Amino acid sequence: MTAQVIDGKAFAAKVRAQVAEHVDRLKADHGITPGLAVVLVGEDPASEVYVAHKHKATVEVGMASFEHKLPTDTPEEELFALIDQLNADPAVHGILCQFPVPDHLDERRTVARIDPAKDVDGLSVTNAGLLATGGKALVSCTPLGCLMLLRDQLDTLSGLNAVVIGRSNLFGKPMAQLLLQQNCTVTIAHSRSQDLPGICRGADILVAAVGRAEMVKGDWVKPGAAVIDVGITRTEHPEKPGKTRLVGDVDFDSASEVAGAITPVPGGVGPMTIACLLANTLTACCRAHGLEEPEGLTA
Amino acid sequence: MTAQVIDGKAFAAKVRAQVAEHVDRLKADHGITPGLAVVLVGEDPASEVYVAHKHKATVEVGMASFEHKLPTDTPEEELFALIDQLNADPAVHGILCQFPVPDHLDERRTVARIDPAKDVDGLSVTNAGLLATGGKALVSCTPLGCLMLLRDQLDTLSGLNAVVIGRSNLFGKPMAQLLLQQNCTVTIAHSRSQDLPGICRGADILVAAVGRAEMVKGDWVKPGAAVIDVGITRTEHPEKPGKTRLVGDVDFDSASEVAGAITPVPGGVGPMTIACLLANTLTACCRAHGLEEPEGLTA
Repeated sequence: MTAQVIDGKAFAAKVRAQVAEHVDRLKADHGITPGLAVVLVGEDPASEVYVAHKHKATVEVGMASFEHKLPTDTPEEELFALIDQLNADPAVHGILCQFPVPDHLDERRTVARIDPAKDVDGLSVTNAGLLATGGKALVSCTPLGCLMLLRDQLDTLSGLNAVVIGRSNLFGKPMAQLLLQQNCTVTIAHSRSQDLPGICRGADILVAAVGRAEMVKGDWVKPGAAVIDVGITRTEHPEKPGKTRLVGDVDFDSASEVAGAITPVPGGVGPMTIACLLANTLTACCRAHGLEEPEGLTA
Repeated sequence: MTAQVIDGKAFAAKVRAQVAEHVDRLKADHGITPGLAVVLVGEDPASEVYVAHKHKATVEVGMASFEHKLPTDTPEEELFALIDQLNADPAVHGILCQFPVPDHLDERRTVARIDPAKDVDGLSVTNAGLLATGGKALVSCTPLGCLMLLRDQLDTLSGLNAVVIGRSNLFGKPMAQLLLQQNCTVTIAHSRSQDLPGICRGADILVAAVGRAEMVKGDWVKPGAAVIDVGITRTEHPEKPGKTRLVGDVDFDSASEVAGAITPVPGGVGPMTIACLLANTLTACCRAHGLEEPEGLTA
């Protein structure tokens, strides 16, 4: 069998188009423009690129984009004063602080300062608790994106065995919660797990998020399984000396011979993250105004 | 093999004795008496019995016990005014509202009103979020009790396969989080799971919390596994017509022939719940005063 390769770029474009449609309708019917504020502290070049991408994507779907760049040595109270102001601003429906922040700032405290209803990265304790208890959470973007890909790929997730490798707060734990909500039997595996290949072989849905290049081999994959590869590592190119390439946590060549469907790296899960950030901002905006939530764009 | 029967009553007594020792020390060294407030709305007879048990156990370990009984028709604002007052009272370190509450009151809203630092039932969204993100949560008493039994029984939980049957907010989900924290590979199974017997057979630790009498049979159990039975159902006595008996989710007779250790029903998990309520009140008290937390009595 050769797996269907899941085109995350195309699917993310579809999600962004859906978001744009909703934004148009919000403007036309209610005079509301969803707004996303991104806060960047310092001058990390990678972060600047991400923030620029987010800005462009936000504007493209017709939302308002508010960029706040603060100097590296910004004291916590100034950062918090800005967050407080954004929390209070009715034009801002989503707030994202680009991480990492400089060493003198604390990510956990920073996230905790953001109004959970505007925490479109879904990182706050409140949103983790809402997700864990079946409440109306804003869900971390990458797991939400994986869920959307899986729902698109499979008729139903109910009753399937899902294995998530990795248990980070950012990805593995919320991914497990989302799969549980879909009535999967969910196994969370990690570096301490015994017989990881055996655990993976039982998975109808296999989600890998460990950050170890090409760890998951084809003979770990159940024939026909849906394989979602969240890893992304730059490694030496095997055929072109001195060149590098991006690979995932899954050995694509061998796994795609066995899986039913598989996300490539790059072009799989990656593009979904910004699309889901926009979806979350839209959701937060609808909730703030007591309007119906967009179908298919939330957990 | 015949399983070791885990004596939850004896272990709970040990936990209560440890709590009492800590309380003595808090009084002697710091002049602090931990206090637990229990709120009961209405006249449910079962709830009155529970509340009386809790009161007795609280006093026995040397803590202050505050009972607040409100009439069935208490409006929400009066209940909330009481909770606000208890939140503000420095003599109260733990607050518990006995559920169920009368129909005109809402459990979720009631729990949300309790200061998360005093939410010794561990039911609030904040405590669920703290548990899910590795923060300092107060953890729901029954899963905490099961964890204590398992830590006492096993040298280490790290790397073991744990299966939790049931995914309630009160038990299954926090239990899974606790086992994950202990570095178990955790599978959450439930009514929609396929081949539940097969899933259970892979479990070094099997925790059943589904509320279906004697569902888990001996041939579902891996030889030598630790089996924790959270279910409790009153059924007809098989040999004494007209009489009833309490049984768990596990078929004790067949499972105890295979397991390495097993909790009976009654006398297994049950007695741990009040012991952990006292442990949580002690923990909340220590945290409120910036004192070291009691070892072995938290997650």
